[in-house]
Amino acid sequence: MHQTIFGEDCAYCQGGELLAKFGIKICDLEVSQLILFKEQSKRGRCVVAYQDHVSEIVDLTEEQRNAFLADVTRAAKAIHKVFNPDKLNYGAYGDTGCHLHVHLVPKYKDGDEWGGVFQMNPGKVFLSDEEYAEMIEQIKAAL
Amino acid sequence: MHQTIFGEDCAYCQGGELLAKFGIKICDLEVSQLILFKEQSKRGRCVVAYQDHVSEIVDLTEEQRNAFLADVTRAAKAIHKVFNPDKLNYGAYGDTGCHLHVHLVPKYKDGDEWGGVFQMNPGKVFLSDEEYAEMIEQIKAAL
Repeated sequence: MHQTIFGEDCAYCQGGELLAKFGIKICDLEVSQLILFKEQSKRGRCVVAYQDHVSEIVDLTEEQRNAFLADVTRAAKAIHKVFNPDKLNYGAYGDTGCHLHVHLVPKYKDGDEWGGVFQMNPGKVFLSDEEYAEMIEQIKAAL
Repeated sequence: MHQTIFGEDCAYCQGGELLAKFGIKICDLEVSQLILFKEQSKRGRCVVAYQDHVSEIVDLTEEQRNAFLADVTRAAKAIHKVFNPDKLNYGAYGDTGCHLHVHLVPKYKDGDEWGGVFQMNPGKVFLSDEEYAEMIEQIKAAL
């Protein structure tokens, strides 16, 4: 991952405490980073954040967009493999930020928020450091 | 657009009354159809639905995925051009359907649902047939 555009107050650019408020970096992918979302009411929820501080996919070249979607798809397939959800939701919002990222949100039949959209951060389920570490190892092994 | 996989009770496959419950077809794109979402609390909201009845982007080949995202980006750029939102949100859910589609939801500073996700169908703002027709012409001209 080779970052060329940077945001001063951006969790995806800065990492550290800003990122730790909601996520744990799993690893770099080709043009993005894969992040475990700490709120786990939808088991396996992750974020794929593009390497540069750009706002939307319309700001990417075709080559950059295809590389980003290859990363998103690679992460999505790993989540399907490890957690076996009935559906994976994909959402890119970021109204007040400007760093392209996609929420990958596994949905389970009769589980939390099944059948609709998903909240940005339901604030319901948080795990222990050991449980996060185990999920991260499972996801990395499935990439 | 050349459809090869078909869903019996699917609004995107059948069109007609099933689609008319929530949308109006604008036009075909290369591998998808572009649909105006009737609920317009976020002015310019559309859906891009893939040509085949497949569930997620993980079910596409790389070539199909790149073509679909090219269509999504083309539609997104047209929405930016016509409606000038402050941000466009992109969401793919479909927990209980199996037809890959992306909601393109323009957000406006201090407007409806600014700063968060968006409801699947807020049911707040519906327009006249003439108003829908005018939006469709604007979008088609900007593609």
